[in-house]
Amino acid sequence: MDDDPKTEILDATYQALCTHGYANLTLEDIAAESDRSKASIHYYFDRKRDLFAAFLGYLFEKYTDVVDGSTGDTARETLLALLDVLLTDGEDAPDTEFQTAMLEMKAQAPYDDGVRAWFTESDELLSDRIRAIIADGVESGELDERVDPDLSAEFLTTAIQGARTRRVAVGHSMDRIHEVTTRYVETQLVGRDASEVSH
Amino acid sequence: MDDDPKTEILDATYQALCTHGYANLTLEDIAAESDRSKASIHYYFDRKRDLFAAFLGYLFEKYTDVVDGSTGDTARETLLALLDVLLTDGEDAPDTEFQTAMLEMKAQAPYDDGVRAWFTESDELLSDRIRAIIADGVESGELDERVDPDLSAEFLTTAIQGARTRRVAVGHSMDRIHEVTTRYVETQLVGRDASEVSH
Repeated sequence: MDDDPKTEILDATYQALCTHGYANLTLEDIAAESDRSKASIHYYFDRKRDLFAAFLGYLFEKYTDVVDGSTGDTARETLLALLDVLLTDGEDAPDTEFQTAMLEMKAQAPYDDGVRAWFTESDELLSDRIRAIIADGVESGELDERVDPDLSAEFLTTAIQGARTRRVAVGHSMDRIHEVTTRYVETQLVGRDASEVSH
Repeated sequence: MDDDPKTEILDATYQALCTHGYANLTLEDIAAESDRSKASIHYYFDRKRDLFAAFLGYLFEKYTDVVDGSTGDTARETLLALLDVLLTDGEDAPDTEFQTAMLEMKAQAPYDDGVRAWFTESDELLSDRIRAIIADGVESGELDERVDPDLSAEFLTTAIQGARTRRVAVGHSMDRIHEVTTRYVETQLVGRDASEVSH
C-alpha cells in the first residue's frame, strides 16, 4: 500500500475500473476500493473530472515504464521483450477486466478530448518506441537494411491494438498473435530465412 | 428506401447508432430516423432487445456480403480486394460514426452474451475467409509454400481489428495500415522480393 494518499486513491480508481467498468464508475465505487470516504477523496480531487485527469497521468506513467522498461542487449531482443510484455494473456483476472475498461474508454475518445489526447499520446509512445528500436537495429546492421522502420512500427503497433480489442470483444487469446508477431520480427525484420522460422 | 417495414426500422437503427452512439440509444432515437412512431416500431419488435437482436442479424448479413463479396481472379487479388474494402477511411462521416458505435458495442461484449456471440461470429467469418483464401493460394502454388494460412490469417485479422480501434480511439488513418498489410501480402505471402516491394 502506498503512503501517498493521492496515489492510494488512484490505485483504488484502477481497482474500481476493473470491478465496475468505465461507463458507470462513481466516486462511491472508488471510495469502496480504498479506506477512504467519498469526502476524503473530494479533499484531494475537487471533481470527478480532476480525479480522472490525475488517473490518466498515473496510467501514462505506468505505461511508459512498461514500454520503455522492456530492453535487451540487441534490437531484436528488445523488440521481443516488448512483445512478451504487451502480448500476454496474464493469469490475473483484474488485467482482463482492466483491458475491458480501457476499451470502453477508447470508445469514448471521440466524445472526450482528454481521453482522446491520452490515447493519442499512448499510441505515439508505443509506435515511436518500436520505430526507434527498429531504426537502431537497421542502423547497426542487426536488422535487414531493407526494413522501413515507419511501416514496420505501424504494423506492430496496429497488431498490438488489434490483439487487445479481440481479447476483450471475443475473448481471443493473445498467445497466437504473440507467436505471429514474433515470427514477423524474426523473418521480416531480422531477416532469418523463413524456412528456419516458418511464417 | 426499402419497402419492408422491418428493414426500414433496421436501416433507421443504423442511422440512429451513427448519430447517438450505442450506450444511450433509445427507441425514440430510432423512430426519429424513420417515418415511424415508437408505437409502430413496437408493433414489429416487442422489446428493444428483440429489435437489437434483429439488427445484429441484419448487420451480419451486410458484413458477410462485404467479406465474401470481395473477389479477384487469384488469391493475391482476392486478398488485396478484401484489404481495399476493409481498410479505407471512407469519405462519408456516417461510416466513422458507425465504427465508433461498433467499438462501444465491442467494449460491452464482456457484459452481453448476444453482443459477444455476434462479435465472435464476425471475427471468425473474417479470419476463416482470409485463411481459406491463403490456403487456396498456397495449394495452387500462387502463394509461397512456406506460408502458414492459420498464422497469416491471424496476423491480418488482428491488424484489421487494430486499424479499426486506432481509427476510432486516436483518429489514426487507415491508409498506412492498408499500405503495410498490402506489402505483407506481397512480400510474405506471394513471396515477391522485398527489394521489389520494400517492407
